[in-house]
Amino acid sequence: MDAAEFRRRGREMVDYVADYLENVEQRPVYPDLEPGYLRSLIPNEAPLEPENYEDIMKDVERVIMPGVTHWHSPYFFAYFPAASSYPAMLADMLCGAIGCIGFSWAASPACTELETVMLDWLGKMLQLPECFIAGTHGHGGGVIQSTASEATLMSLLAARCKAVRRVQPSNPKISEAEILSKLVAYTSEQAHSSVERAALIGGVMIRKVPTDKRYAVTGDLLKKMVDEDKAAGLIPFYLCATLGTTPSCAFDHITELGPICNEENMWMHIDAAYAGSAFICPEFRPLLNGVEFADSFNFNPHKWLLINFDCSTMWVRERADIIGAFKMEPLYLKHENQERFRSLKMWFVFRMYGVKGLQGHIRKQVALAKEFESLVRADKRFEICAEVIMGLVCFRLKGSNELNQNLLKKITKSREIHLVPCQLSGRFVLRFAICARTTESCHIQQAWQHITQLTFELLQEPSL
Amino acid sequence: MDAAEFRRRGREMVDYVADYLENVEQRPVYPDLEPGYLRSLIPNEAPLEPENYEDIMKDVERVIMPGVTHWHSPYFFAYFPAASSYPAMLADMLCGAIGCIGFSWAASPACTELETVMLDWLGKMLQLPECFIAGTHGHGGGVIQSTASEATLMSLLAARCKAVRRVQPSNPKISEAEILSKLVAYTSEQAHSSVERAALIGGVMIRKVPTDKRYAVTGDLLKKMVDEDKAAGLIPFYLCATLGTTPSCAFDHITELGPICNEENMWMHIDAAYAGSAFICPEFRPLLNGVEFADSFNFNPHKWLLINFDCSTMWVRERADIIGAFKMEPLYLKHENQERFRSLKMWFVFRMYGVKGLQGHIRKQVALAKEFESLVRADKRFEICAEVIMGLVCFRLKGSNELNQNLLKKITKSREIHLVPCQLSGRFVLRFAICARTTESCHIQQAWQHITQLTFELLQEPSL
Repeated sequence: MDAAEFRRRGREMVDYVADYLENVEQRPVYPDLEPGYLRSLIPNEAPLEPENYEDIMKDVERVIMPGVTHWHSPYFFAYFPAASSYPAMLADMLCGAIGCIGFSWAASPACTELETVMLDWLGKMLQLPECFIAGTHGHGGGVIQSTASEATLMSLLAARCKAVRRVQPSNPKISEAEILSKLVAYTSEQAHSSVERAALIGGVMIRKVPTDKRYAVTGDLLKKMVDEDKAAGLIPFYLCATLGTTPSCAFDHITELGPICNEENMWMHIDAAYAGSAFICPEFRPLLNGVEFADSFNFNPHKWLLINFDCSTMWVRERADIIGAFKMEPLYLKHENQERFRSLKMWFVFRMYGVKGLQGHIRKQVALAKEFESLVRADKRFEICAEVIMGLVCFRLKGSNELNQNLLKKITKSREIHLVPCQLSGRFVLRFAICARTTESCHIQQAWQHITQLTFELLQEPSL
Repeated sequence: MDAAEFRRRGREMVDYVADYLENVEQRPVYPDLEPGYLRSLIPNEAPLEPENYEDIMKDVERVIMPGVTHWHSPYFFAYFPAASSYPAMLADMLCGAIGCIGFSWAASPACTELETVMLDWLGKMLQLPECFIAGTHGHGGGVIQSTASEATLMSLLAARCKAVRRVQPSNPKISEAEILSKLVAYTSEQAHSSVERAALIGGVMIRKVPTDKRYAVTGDLLKKMVDEDKAAGLIPFYLCATLGTTPSCAFDHITELGPICNEENMWMHIDAAYAGSAFICPEFRPLLNGVEFADSFNFNPHKWLLINFDCSTMWVRERADIIGAFKMEPLYLKHENQERFRSLKMWFVFRMYGVKGLQGHIRKQVALAKEFESLVRADKRFEICAEVIMGLVCFRLKGSNELNQNLLKKITKSREIHLVPCQLSGRFVLRFAICARTTESCHIQQAWQHITQLTFELLQEPSL
């Protein structure tokens, strides 16, 4: 394919993309397929000779689209949102053309420098303490990661390195292996499984802190565990606090947790993967109070800030902690062998929306969640299972877990809307997350009508 | 930006991309800037109100382009290639529109399934042993990673987990921490720094095996180290062999190393990040002989197989080893919280080029390297420093390191071509890698003429 054909096919693809997104709500949101469906639809081997572009695009509709879960359908309410916007897609096209690998400043100065400045822009939107902003006299700064899991791992490893260096000099008889075997990391029992995996990779113990009635970790609950572990000869070294947990969007009490971590020489990492985007709104910013105690903070603009995957933003208080742990390029906190020009997406989106436009997006989606919450609350057969603070509503039919499992099965089977469940205090709960950028009030109303219709059918059935 | 404006701006961007790539050789390949140049060119904070798209595109030329190292200029000969092709860019546009996050089968069946089948297609192109192909009766399969570093880390952690499980039952008195403190990983002294980093993350010792005159690790050299370490009470558990090292594209002797690893219960991972793409050509496939002894194998189609970053392909012999180590989704070897629809790029590229087209690309670039090698060999002032097997030529002026450093400084300063150096046996060596898809014989001739002109000037200067 030469440049001339790319111009032609590129225009067609732009139209295909726009058509897809404009009409995605007419497709069933969830596929009706069995695992393994695809293999029989395409050859077993790559073709020897080039094929026609038209044939490939026909196969996109024949092979791919029937197997796609349409994350950008306004009827998609599962997981958390995957951000998508036209300015980000344009920036990604440019990123693909430049096609640099930004593993050092010289490998592409613009790539490295725009990233640092965009992380400052975003840090200022969130009113992060100055120590996290690179363009100040502090020692901190921000960097783009692929996922929140990666940021969690990096923070845990940096904390591990720091802990070993702190403990070793005062205990020269203890080997590094022994120190490692005494290190304990903490996180909420509600935290994402990636925290547990990070501890597994880092070879350290992890303890899950129980949560209060709002599914949040409090200072008391952490302090009790830390004291017990210290008494048992262990070395608490790391806390991953969550702002906006995956099951119910709960917020750990970081204003209480932070001082404990600081006092105990524990690294506090804050994972705000989903909720972090909302902190650009003054009315939600108080939920981030306590970040001033943190050593690192991360959230995913690729979830809720209209920047297409991947763009997980991480700030650290001391660049030196990360550099020391990973032997990384010191100047800009960059990995070796890593990464495209991802900051272009941030630049395009921030400028095309403006801060006000982004705030408007967050506020609209929170309002839609509140609208859905009201519908649920008005129906006495249902209950709300966790406080609705952001764009997630956890709800269930009053009754058994089995009843709710059956309701979800009906919903999934109907393929008109898509939800996933969670467990809260042993109860099977339905999660309704406002996801697509194009979700409007009419889709919420439609979804609720659909749910109540299926509920009506379910309650008519003879119970098993 | 609504769909209508996206259609318009998308067409403009397609043209911008095509124009950029058609004319990139007219831009200086390397920027003329000091670190920190960008911050003063843009505001300190994100705009409150939306800006015009035209202003952003003007800033792409004003702010970004002057700071770009143009990896796709035919005069770019630094590092290794970053793959780029029009079909991959079209697939990336589609990937952005679908915008799914494929962390489980249900999150997007087509995404998960196409990846598995594309890894089979590619594995068959490379004639990998059947045990690595998912669509067989074996227990192996392939998965896309972001980078070779990630694949190395994953293989080391899986090996660590397997080693602990193997050693523990027969040594019930030894704690896991003690076992970990005795584990030793091995890699070539010529290996990429990411192997050392993986060991650092995994908390295990790493030993660098010396290389022979061709900068390759042989069986004898490994065996000697392993025996010494075992005698010292250590537990050898992992080898990362390299096919195509970063400094000189050397090939470790995996037919010798494999049996040693199998005998010693050591995991053998093969990192063929750059050279792996060439194994689709029958004439280069013998270099992969020995892969039948490997537990895992990885290379980067995003380097040399015309598939834009990121696309690092990894195969494992036993899916269960990876699943056990990471508690991953068992069905398809997927990470949680991970990844776009990257296999679309593979599908588009394989079909638009065909295997023959891809072979042609590899052969053309190897021929260009041979052409450059001949030019160097014909000039008695220069020497070739390592066998030219793929698209990389290591060369230097006969004489001191300082002389060669000065030559490289002149080359970098002139900004007509871009190279980076390496160290081989303590000597400062220039690396000339065939990188851009559009590099032709004329660019090689031009580059050599430029180098000899600068050499002429250098040798005229009074020596320091």
